[in-house]
Amino acid sequence: MTDYRQMWSDLGMDLEKHDQLTGALPLVYETVYLKQPNRPRAMEYFDLVVAEIHSLRIAELVEHRRRGGKVCGAFCVFVPVEIIRAAGAIAVGLCGGSQFWIPDGEKVLPRNLCPLIKASVGARLSGTCPYFQSCDLLIGETTCDGKKKAWEVLNNFAPVYVMDLPQMKRPRDLVAWREEVGLFLDKMEELTGRRVTPERLAEEIQLQNRLRRTLERLYAARKADPVPVSGKDVLLVTQVSFYDDPRRFIEKTEALAAEAEARIAAGEGVFSPGAPRILVTGTPMAIPNWKLHHIIETAGAAVVCEETCTGTRFFEHQVDEAGRTLDEQLQALAERYLKINCSCFTPNPGRIEDILRLVKEYRADGVIYYNLQFCHGYAVEYYAVEKALKERGIPVLKVETDYSEEDTGQLRTRVEAFLEMLR
Amino acid sequence: MTDYRQMWSDLGMDLEKHDQLTGALPLVYETVYLKQPNRPRAMEYFDLVVAEIHSLRIAELVEHRRRGGKVCGAFCVFVPVEIIRAAGAIAVGLCGGSQFWIPDGEKVLPRNLCPLIKASVGARLSGTCPYFQSCDLLIGETTCDGKKKAWEVLNNFAPVYVMDLPQMKRPRDLVAWREEVGLFLDKMEELTGRRVTPERLAEEIQLQNRLRRTLERLYAARKADPVPVSGKDVLLVTQVSFYDDPRRFIEKTEALAAEAEARIAAGEGVFSPGAPRILVTGTPMAIPNWKLHHIIETAGAAVVCEETCTGTRFFEHQVDEAGRTLDEQLQALAERYLKINCSCFTPNPGRIEDILRLVKEYRADGVIYYNLQFCHGYAVEYYAVEKALKERGIPVLKVETDYSEEDTGQLRTRVEAFLEMLR
Repeated sequence: MTDYRQMWSDLGMDLEKHDQLTGALPLVYETVYLKQPNRPRAMEYFDLVVAEIHSLRIAELVEHRRRGGKVCGAFCVFVPVEIIRAAGAIAVGLCGGSQFWIPDGEKVLPRNLCPLIKASVGARLSGTCPYFQSCDLLIGETTCDGKKKAWEVLNNFAPVYVMDLPQMKRPRDLVAWREEVGLFLDKMEELTGRRVTPERLAEEIQLQNRLRRTLERLYAARKADPVPVSGKDVLLVTQVSFYDDPRRFIEKTEALAAEAEARIAAGEGVFSPGAPRILVTGTPMAIPNWKLHHIIETAGAAVVCEETCTGTRFFEHQVDEAGRTLDEQLQALAERYLKINCSCFTPNPGRIEDILRLVKEYRADGVIYYNLQFCHGYAVEYYAVEKALKERGIPVLKVETDYSEEDTGQLRTRVEAFLEMLR
Repeated sequence: MTDYRQMWSDLGMDLEKHDQLTGALPLVYETVYLKQPNRPRAMEYFDLVVAEIHSLRIAELVEHRRRGGKVCGAFCVFVPVEIIRAAGAIAVGLCGGSQFWIPDGEKVLPRNLCPLIKASVGARLSGTCPYFQSCDLLIGETTCDGKKKAWEVLNNFAPVYVMDLPQMKRPRDLVAWREEVGLFLDKMEELTGRRVTPERLAEEIQLQNRLRRTLERLYAARKADPVPVSGKDVLLVTQVSFYDDPRRFIEKTEALAAEAEARIAAGEGVFSPGAPRILVTGTPMAIPNWKLHHIIETAGAAVVCEETCTGTRFFEHQVDEAGRTLDEQLQALAERYLKINCSCFTPNPGRIEDILRLVKEYRADGVIYYNLQFCHGYAVEYYAVEKALKERGIPVLKVETDYSEEDTGQLRTRVEAFLEMLR
């Protein structure tokens, strides 16, 4: 442990404050994760990742930088990590999911802003997140007003590059996005001083496709009844995918998927047969935000799918691997990433089609619409989603919340009442 | 009056509810406007406009449509009204400024959304706004998350066309915006069935330039000390500019500006000499939102300038009139409109430059940053604006509010304390 303290200190971290942050995690993790009955054995790896969340992977980043490599942090599933890695840099996800970082975020941002944004900025300002501290460049994007403007504030404390995402999905918007992806490649080459070759980019495209397909495989196992792995566990796996070494992550997740498939073959599951099956849709859940899943699953229901950025939006659709030139590859990347149905697009009918399809595929009994407070995009889009679900007789509950525990009791009551209705 | 009731009924309005809306206005207007001492005589016209707000101008719209003309409603200063008018349609501003419309807006939109958006959508749903009822097409834009997504909801109740505004101001964004302006021209031609000729567009460019210059002239008079016209009065004039007949508006506003200039020559003003001079910056104030100005000016200070969309952002910068072809004219329009420094752009340093320049030009003693609740763009941008002002020793007060009267007492106390500090 002494070594890690030196490492954190070298990263310019506030050690005392960091102790406060990490001191609370083991107990929370014990309650939320380790007490789950009948967990797959392959979850051991992910338990280890959490236990060593600020040490093992950080040591890898430090070593990479010691050898002259760069590290880039991103906050959104629209950032094409294939390009970051093809330029020789490591990509890590930086979205903040802890209430711990909110007060520091609120020093520079309005209080009535989405907790994910406040926590992300607060993580940087507090000096308690070694991932932030390890980044040579932060990659922002223009998906929502809060993030778009928060990057300007964050830029006072760390270098930020912003990708401009289109707001519509017309043919001309794909052209603009293709150009933006090209500008991003230029930026990565400038940062790392390395040329991105078609060979390297092809490797990374294949690797990220494999990573996404691995999650697809794991998620497919959740379609079984009884479900072989809890929603909480799969959420954790998805959260870890954003910052783990991709090859190791694939190996460990394939093992988990194989174990889940063996359970299905044996008719084994983690919830009692007939337990309500819930599809969660809405805003992302950054680690360690397990709040809603914990409430749902301790109330006896299973979360079987997440139509969120920490769910299907992250791994559905693969990049066409046929491209041989950089131009073809960038086009393929642009096309794949623009298929993500985020509420930042207007209109966004694809998301409703996705939700209806996923409800069917995952045999969900009901939908919980998860809205981080003050996220206007998803909050306004609820109108259309609710309409589509109600027209088809699919029960839906809207939950708007932040990272605090203040409303946990009230949320639990509402979720339990909703589940009661489904039985 | 009977005729107007028939007209409103023909427009599909809810007459009973409309009576509730208009019933309260005379008393409010009496208190906020008519009791001001020493008002310019030329304000009589604007008093009449308010008194007949749902009748005189509406009768003109009805007559225009009877003769086969179209009416378009817009919600943003980025919509190039020159093109609407060159296609033979009438353009009206539709932003809602009344608390009356909030409950109807909240039937389809989240409660924690900007009141301007909720009131605008609520005005349509309530069937109490004859401007909305007179529109053949609503023109939305992608300036903020709330509006961008609210158009999707509104589109369930009325036809909406959305202009996609860039989120940055790089050369390539100007190119994209120029194309968007071209698409808008196509849409207007399709709606009206009339070709936009360079001659007609030139006329409308000149007319709108004249209208903006007229406001520029009126605002210039406010640079004098004592100020010859109140902030409340100028705010009303600007609000009226969005839906009045442009030629009549120019004539009446020129008369007001001339009267204000005569007062300056005579050393006359509407506030006592040495009264604190306030620059208001931030979010727009749609009619009849006079809340903050009323608080400031009844506390003895003068609002001398608004760096808002119902202020300088609306009228600064003119369209280059040299263009002879449609292509040149559309380019000139795109360039002019993209000069507006809205917080929807990232980064947006031009707005800070504007504020610092306007503080100097209008000899402001302090700045009040006006933020409609839940408007993330302006709320987050406060960080940079506050920093720039404080570095220069310019006092600033941030006010975040909605349309309700609930916080009026508290706001008054805060504003008075701020003004006390300036004396």
